[in-house]
Amino acid sequence: MTGADVVVAVMSGNFTQRGEPTILDKWTRAKLALQNGVDLVVELPIFNAVEPAHLFARGALMLLSELQVCDVVFGAEHPDWDFAAMVQAERHFSSSEFHRYNATFATQFNQELQTVTGHQLTSSNDILAFAYEKAKQQLGLSLNLLPLQRRGNDYHDQRIEGRLASATAIRTAVVKHRSLEQAVPSSTAKALQHVSQVPSWARLYPLLRNHLIQAPVEELGSYYEVAEGLEYRMKEAASRHLSFDGFNRAVKSKRYTYARLLRAYLYTLLEMTKEEVRTHQQRPYLRVLGFTTRGQAYLHAIKKQVSIPLVTNVNQDLRDHDLALDYRAGKLYQLFNGAEQDLKHAPWRIAVKE
Amino acid sequence: MTGADVVVAVMSGNFTQRGEPTILDKWTRAKLALQNGVDLVVELPIFNAVEPAHLFARGALMLLSELQVCDVVFGAEHPDWDFAAMVQAERHFSSSEFHRYNATFATQFNQELQTVTGHQLTSSNDILAFAYEKAKQQLGLSLNLLPLQRRGNDYHDQRIEGRLASATAIRTAVVKHRSLEQAVPSSTAKALQHVSQVPSWARLYPLLRNHLIQAPVEELGSYYEVAEGLEYRMKEAASRHLSFDGFNRAVKSKRYTYARLLRAYLYTLLEMTKEEVRTHQQRPYLRVLGFTTRGQAYLHAIKKQVSIPLVTNVNQDLRDHDLALDYRAGKLYQLFNGAEQDLKHAPWRIAVKE
Repeated sequence: MTGADVVVAVMSGNFTQRGEPTILDKWTRAKLALQNGVDLVVELPIFNAVEPAHLFARGALMLLSELQVCDVVFGAEHPDWDFAAMVQAERHFSSSEFHRYNATFATQFNQELQTVTGHQLTSSNDILAFAYEKAKQQLGLSLNLLPLQRRGNDYHDQRIEGRLASATAIRTAVVKHRSLEQAVPSSTAKALQHVSQVPSWARLYPLLRNHLIQAPVEELGSYYEVAEGLEYRMKEAASRHLSFDGFNRAVKSKRYTYARLLRAYLYTLLEMTKEEVRTHQQRPYLRVLGFTTRGQAYLHAIKKQVSIPLVTNVNQDLRDHDLALDYRAGKLYQLFNGAEQDLKHAPWRIAVKE
Repeated sequence: MTGADVVVAVMSGNFTQRGEPTILDKWTRAKLALQNGVDLVVELPIFNAVEPAHLFARGALMLLSELQVCDVVFGAEHPDWDFAAMVQAERHFSSSEFHRYNATFATQFNQELQTVTGHQLTSSNDILAFAYEKAKQQLGLSLNLLPLQRRGNDYHDQRIEGRLASATAIRTAVVKHRSLEQAVPSSTAKALQHVSQVPSWARLYPLLRNHLIQAPVEELGSYYEVAEGLEYRMKEAASRHLSFDGFNRAVKSKRYTYARLLRAYLYTLLEMTKEEVRTHQQRPYLRVLGFTTRGQAYLHAIKKQVSIPLVTNVNQDLRDHDLALDYRAGKLYQLFNGAEQDLKHAPWRIAVKE
């Protein structure tokens, strides 16, 4: 599509944007990407990956820009929409309108957008496409944004039909041990077959529940994404519910989406304060998870133009300082698969057949 | 032995003095006690129960004294020793001697005691007998202390032989599904048969590990029983070990006994600070778990002489204030058996055949 010499992927680590643990850990997923056409994989740090769309997009574009990438390709439900015009339209909205208490932020925003542009951002990838465009404008980047038509299933579809499947459909197939070979590369299908128990919030809940019960409510209120009384709701629900589903339903209100709540639970479990997350967001880095020989050559060629730290190995200093949040998230994830996620992990180096 | 009209038991809640979760919860154990000769069961609060012998003994005697008890009976390996004289001898020890870094406190204390009295306090129940005598003297109580010869197995014995078995032997029999009917009342044997998985630190460890990794080391250092750099040792060991046994061995040093460490782990998991525990220790209460009709009549007769709060039901105010530590410990224990431990739990009321 772009005639690219090198393909770079920015990938979330061990937790998704929606606050869920990934089925395969970041090393497994990076290797699969390298085996299937990507030349360089960098990790989107948790403080950008587990975030609402606008911060997720901002973090990703900033890293791609540092890597001197020209073209950014991503899926969208409506690639033909004029996202740049939608971003312009948004500037005219009054931010005070977004604080009504009886609807989620997304719902309110869409009502406004419909009035002005005739479109609603209700599909997950359209929302991200909008966020990329907005981040590009805000950061003043000269990247080309190339939305690509998503085909086949919708993001939220549960069933695999044909060769193109949504992430949700693939996840469901893994959980229910259904065949997914038609929808993913064979190396991915093989890796997914080895997952005996799919990482889930149900398994993390005993840890979250105990911390919510034992920690002072003021401390809970200091965590990133926890505010406006959510700390009280979570504490009370934890005290009453032994199952994650019961807890999650008890915390849910019209005000927050489930994705927003899962992110709040995750930051609570990681005991990451607002201050801590914001401090780390000011100090970005490029964490390399792997490359092909071609990707390695590219990285070598551009590295003098990279203005932020390039991390290929996590030493004790990085563990305790710049990379502390990713390290801590990796230690939580280790509960699922037992594998160390950061220390003593050199990037993958994969030979590609030319 | 004492010709008592009424038998009162002070019982630890859901965690033992050595920092282990109990096999049966406090309500089950209280009921068994009432079915087997005890008339009134009160709970020793966690801030006295999960403590070194001297604070354990102090808390228990104080509660028994409030309940106007005359005679206190307990087992000892050497009931014939003059514990009062040993307590006198201890006063001459210089406390500065107990701070050498290459031996546990208990070892150092015993070396001194051997020199002066010719005895060593190495058996668990002798240590408690000494502690009861010391607490009695310090609190100026007029109770009669009646040490009773422990017979049959030693406390630490692993095997049940004959009708008298140690707690360790009974615990081992439960874990290994061995017969224990000869050593416990039939109601107890029945209750133990229903335990499908014995509560253990192995099951609590994922919760402890995550908190040790995520919390700032300064916060860990603020917890009760955590001091002198133990917070750093625990944090480092948690980061390296996925199994409780590996973690526990990594933290162990000559300076601390395993019981001392388990107590530190428990207070860490309960996120209870030194200040919080000491504040609660200043505000004792009598928490009634159950009585026979005889015990209830006794309680009614003496209640005007009781100078501390008598708690028969935990309301929201008690949950959040005076009884907060026991409540939180109960919520942790609930992981094992799913049963609420404090709210909506009236004391057992058991009819006894006269």
